[in-house]
Amino acid sequence: MPNKQLRCQVSVRIFGKEKCFGPGVAELLERVDQLHSLRKATIEMDMAYSKAWKIIKIAEENLGFPLLDSVTGGKGGGGAELTQDAKNFLLAYRRFEEAVRSYADETFVEILGG
Amino acid sequence: MPNKQLRCQVSVRIFGKEKCFGPGVAELLERVDQLHSLRKATIEMDMAYSKAWKIIKIAEENLGFPLLDSVTGGKGGGGAELTQDAKNFLLAYRRFEEAVRSYADETFVEILGG
Repeated sequence: MPNKQLRCQVSVRIFGKEKCFGPGVAELLERVDQLHSLRKATIEMDMAYSKAWKIIKIAEENLGFPLLDSVTGGKGGGGAELTQDAKNFLLAYRRFEEAVRSYADETFVEILGG
Repeated sequence: MPNKQLRCQVSVRIFGKEKCFGPGVAELLERVDQLHSLRKATIEMDMAYSKAWKIIKIAEENLGFPLLDSVTGGKGGGGAELTQDAKNFLLAYRRFEEAVRSYADETFVEILGG
């Protein structure tokens, strides 16, 4: 049964009262950090601005802290930066994801791989 | 930032040439094992029979062995049982999934939990 052609893919999601953080919002925040704009981030991800706004609000409500600082303009027209809490959480999330993936890759070879 | 209200959820999927095995096909096979019928399994899961057939074919092609034995009748009208290879693989998949989840739960508390 062991098969050298198989590999695994792991995804981790975080729940508070509801699902609040996963690969999509993590990527969105990383792009905001690079582009300094939520709107530009949504365009790069081909994501509706209203959807991006909603997933950020859900994440903020469940995490208990704001993720974005508006730096200029308003109502989404201006720039945006990650709050320090958002940067810390994002780094911790990526560290967690990487740890789980490394463990999964090793364990996959033991249990299911060749 | 640590937050006692947060928890993680991990999903593992297996790829050959393409995505071939994950929670959906695992549950489908477990129900076939219980119900001795692919059709009954799809009804319980509210899954189209054509979809179930397709995901089983994709899994078989990528894994390299048959998953189902037809035991009576034909063309999906009869009963079905898991092959021994399918039973072995399903158990290994669940063991792998459980190992990754246990590790993720522990690591989540360390990195992101309270």
